[in-house]
Amino acid sequence: MPLSILVIGSRGRMGQLACQAIDADPSMQLVGRVDKDDDLAQCLKQSQADVAVDLTHAKLAATHAELIIDAGCRPVIGTSGLTEQSVRAIQDHCMQQHRGGIIVPNFSLGAVLAMQCAKLISQHFQHAEIIEYHHAEKQDSPSGTAIKTAEMLQNVVEYAPPHSETINGARGAVHQNVPIHSLRVPGIAAKQDVVFGHPGESLTISHNVIDRQAYMPGLLLACRAVMNLNECVYGLEHILPDLQAPSN
Amino acid sequence: MPLSILVIGSRGRMGQLACQAIDADPSMQLVGRVDKDDDLAQCLKQSQADVAVDLTHAKLAATHAELIIDAGCRPVIGTSGLTEQSVRAIQDHCMQQHRGGIIVPNFSLGAVLAMQCAKLISQHFQHAEIIEYHHAEKQDSPSGTAIKTAEMLQNVVEYAPPHSETINGARGAVHQNVPIHSLRVPGIAAKQDVVFGHPGESLTISHNVIDRQAYMPGLLLACRAVMNLNECVYGLEHILPDLQAPSN
Amino acid sequence: MPLSILVIGSRGRMGQLACQAIDADPSMQLVGRVDKDDDLAQCLKQSQADVAVDLTHAKLAATHAELIIDAGCRPVIGTSGLTEQSVRAIQDHCMQQHRGGIIVPNFSLGAVLAMQCAKLISQHFQHAEIIEYHHAEKQDSPSGTAIKTAEMLQNVVEYAPPHSETINGARGAVHQNVPIHSLRVPGIAAKQDVVFGHPGESLTISHNVIDRQAYMPGLLLACRAVMNLNECVYGLEHILPDLQAPSN
Amino acid sequence: MPLSILVIGSRGRMGQLACQAIDADPSMQLVGRVDKDDDLAQCLKQSQADVAVDLTHAKLAATHAELIIDAGCRPVIGTSGLTEQSVRAIQDHCMQQHRGGIIVPNFSLGAVLAMQCAKLISQHFQHAEIIEYHHAEKQDSPSGTAIKTAEMLQNVVEYAPPHSETINGARGAVHQNVPIHSLRVPGIAAKQDVVFGHPGESLTISHNVIDRQAYMPGLLLACRAVMNLNECVYGLEHILPDLQAPSN
Repeated sequence: MPLSILVIGSRGRMGQLACQAIDADPSMQLVGRVDKDDDLAQCLKQSQADVAVDLTHAKLAATHAELIIDAGCRPVIGTSGLTEQSVRAIQDHCMQQHRGGIIVPNFSLGAVLAMQCAKLISQHFQHAEIIEYHHAEKQDSPSGTAIKTAEMLQNVVEYAPPHSETINGARGAVHQNVPIHSLRVPGIAAKQDVVFGHPGESLTISHNVIDRQAYMPGLLLACRAVMNLNECVYGLEHILPDLQAPSN
Repeated sequence: MPLSILVIGSRGRMGQLACQAIDADPSMQLVGRVDKDDDLAQCLKQSQADVAVDLTHAKLAATHAELIIDAGCRPVIGTSGLTEQSVRAIQDHCMQQHRGGIIVPNFSLGAVLAMQCAKLISQHFQHAEIIEYHHAEKQDSPSGTAIKTAEMLQNVVEYAPPHSETINGARGAVHQNVPIHSLRVPGIAAKQDVVFGHPGESLTISHNVIDRQAYMPGLLLACRAVMNLNECVYGLEHILPDLQAPSN
Repeated sequence: MPLSILVIGSRGRMGQLACQAIDADPSMQLVGRVDKDDDLAQCLKQSQADVAVDLTHAKLAATHAELIIDAGCRPVIGTSGLTEQSVRAIQDHCMQQHRGGIIVPNFSLGAVLAMQCAKLISQHFQHAEIIEYHHAEKQDSPSGTAIKTAEMLQNVVEYAPPHSETINGARGAVHQNVPIHSLRVPGIAAKQDVVFGHPGESLTISHNVIDRQAYMPGLLLACRAVMNLNECVYGLEHILPDLQAPSN
Repeated sequence: MPLSILVIGSRGRMGQLACQAIDADPSMQLVGRVDKDDDLAQCLKQSQADVAVDLTHAKLAATHAELIIDAGCRPVIGTSGLTEQSVRAIQDHCMQQHRGGIIVPNFSLGAVLAMQCAKLISQHFQHAEIIEYHHAEKQDSPSGTAIKTAEMLQNVVEYAPPHSETINGARGAVHQNVPIHSLRVPGIAAKQDVVFGHPGESLTISHNVIDRQAYMPGLLLACRAVMNLNECVYGLEHILPDLQAPSN
């Protein structure tokens, strides 16, 4: 029997793509679309969905998750920027009901794999810098992904110190010994290079997203994986089996 | 007490660098240099070295290893291109004497880590291509590292088939479903990109060697690790602890 | 007075974008949209457009251009793959009527500039290779742009010959001494690297298109420039003033 | 008759390479090597060299150039960091004697071509950022080449403003509307990317030096070209014929 899925925020750009991707997957069935004017609790009740994917806003995540869990359904929260408080509220609620859930700030499998590779390499290369390229509309810098990546690196030591700058900012934004350089360039959607150096050699992990299609495989994977959980996990890496076990 | 090390082939380019690197490491002591005109058996006996690093030729590897093992010393064989027969002979000899040994076709930590990352990613991205760049003097193509990398990738499926070429060779050398593209460019020493693609995103592992210094950390690591082995392993990956165990 | 423009093939993906871009430009006015079921001759007569942009098919280009010229309008032919015969027919017709026209196989300013830069560099670097990356649906390889780029390079000499391949195709498709390597990767739309090497240094021109928006500035430029021509030129480079001054 | 050349600073790393390169060129003859303890005036007199290449220090450049010119020889000053005053003194002295001379802060042909390409592209792409990578020993940032490159770009407008930084320095060092990002990475010798963006496309010029060999073709070219000058020029671009024709 196919997995029955409800999409919340189905008219947004991510929502439309998600509906198409679920429709195209023979192991899944799209049993409902929920948007602003709809009553989520009622939709959950009527559809009897196994999984509800929330693609609306971080602010609504905790409220939506509660309704989803109480309806006997499993939440896949696909918004970024949740407060720690919201994350904990959702996790507590899942725990109480012994219900699977997953919060995914970034559905891209490539982004998760890039971070895991960077973490692995950082155990052997003591110097790393991050270059992140985004479209010009992005307001803040560095990106959340760059900051999270810097925090995952281990054993990295500070290198050429920033006081040698003849123009301020040349050596980037240093976070946990990792300089981060943010480019805002029209014509590039979202790209991140993590550059590691040793005397004589360098090693770069480069991840490049050009289209929201990139997020669909991770979204479908989350829908499937949430059925086998009995708690709420945070981050796609928790449901990729080989990232938890030996890679060779 | 420092680890005592003998370098065989000490006058070659790798040999000179190895002697410098060992000299500069306070936990090691260079107790002998052996070259063409020297008697290896006698040097081993006189030096009482813990470890002997062979940087001569693949053809000499098995003979040298036997002398090293019989002298109660541990071989670090740092030449590439050994036949399977030579590898097995060395491993058998180590086994009989319960002696540690290691054969390392490529001492670069970056190369090993790049391959491990590529292997990890290949479990989630079904399409991969390899671009390898080498200096113009390199005779054969594709490189041995590119072929070995292609063989480590898993789940990769063939993509756009080569019969659509209007000029032969455009789609590269296909090995185990992975197209390999070999550039021979003056001004590039040794570089390899492994490019993975998904709809909407791509992920690239790029490794770049510009100087033989790149091989020294792996060489020193092999010297240390061989003391704790009681068999002979093939490849630097076997002595990097985190590559054998969960990375998170 | 704004430039009045007619778009032929207005419902296609390029056509829709072109109509939006013209609408958004205060110096231009969109005076008509022509599609399959419309009568082009009549639309040209009614609209009295200054310029007609044809975004349909290479096969229709010559016929459309003739109707456009005969109506006193100027053709901007924005399709690729025209036969030499079609190109000449359009140019002859423009010549006879002393009418401006332009045939543009690739509206991307970046692509034109990348080729001009590659041409300039080729006067000083004797070895070059091209890597072109396209999405997986692209049928033929190498790409037309890669072949045209190879033909623009000067003084390039053949390097490591292809007979050293242990797997056929490793050294790519050699065209006019330039090896071309074609990658077909989901997640990359259209990218081209031209790699030049000298002993000790390399220089790479990398052009990356991720969205059809890339073609709009060149399209608007062609509409403006065609008003000042009295013959039909082929290629966007002819209307970029600084590229006409002898760069060689 | 071969061109006779004197090398000043022949024992330094650049000097040794220069002597080898001159020796290997059949159209040239190395007629003298001058170092610290030698008397330059006397060496110039004895050797009767056509050209003297100075590879010592910026501080000595003006004094050396004066001696060279007064001896009837032509100076090729191959040091960087000359003050404006020194440059003018050398140019005045050449002018008075109607003597050719050239001051070359960077002998790399690739660096000159990269800057010329960047200048050309900047006429059509309004947004540019520079990433420069250097080895970890480099003290100052941004590099002189990055600053000079930013100054050559035209029509570039400021983009996402730096006040959106959540960590200081993320958006780099902004110089003439061009953000410059400086990486200091062991394992990279000297690399510079100039990244241009348009909606939908990006164009990158990437120059990578891995060895001082990169400077020899430019050095030999300067020795030849200085014979045909009757004034002193600054920068390799002035003797590359195709770069003098107006590219804008």
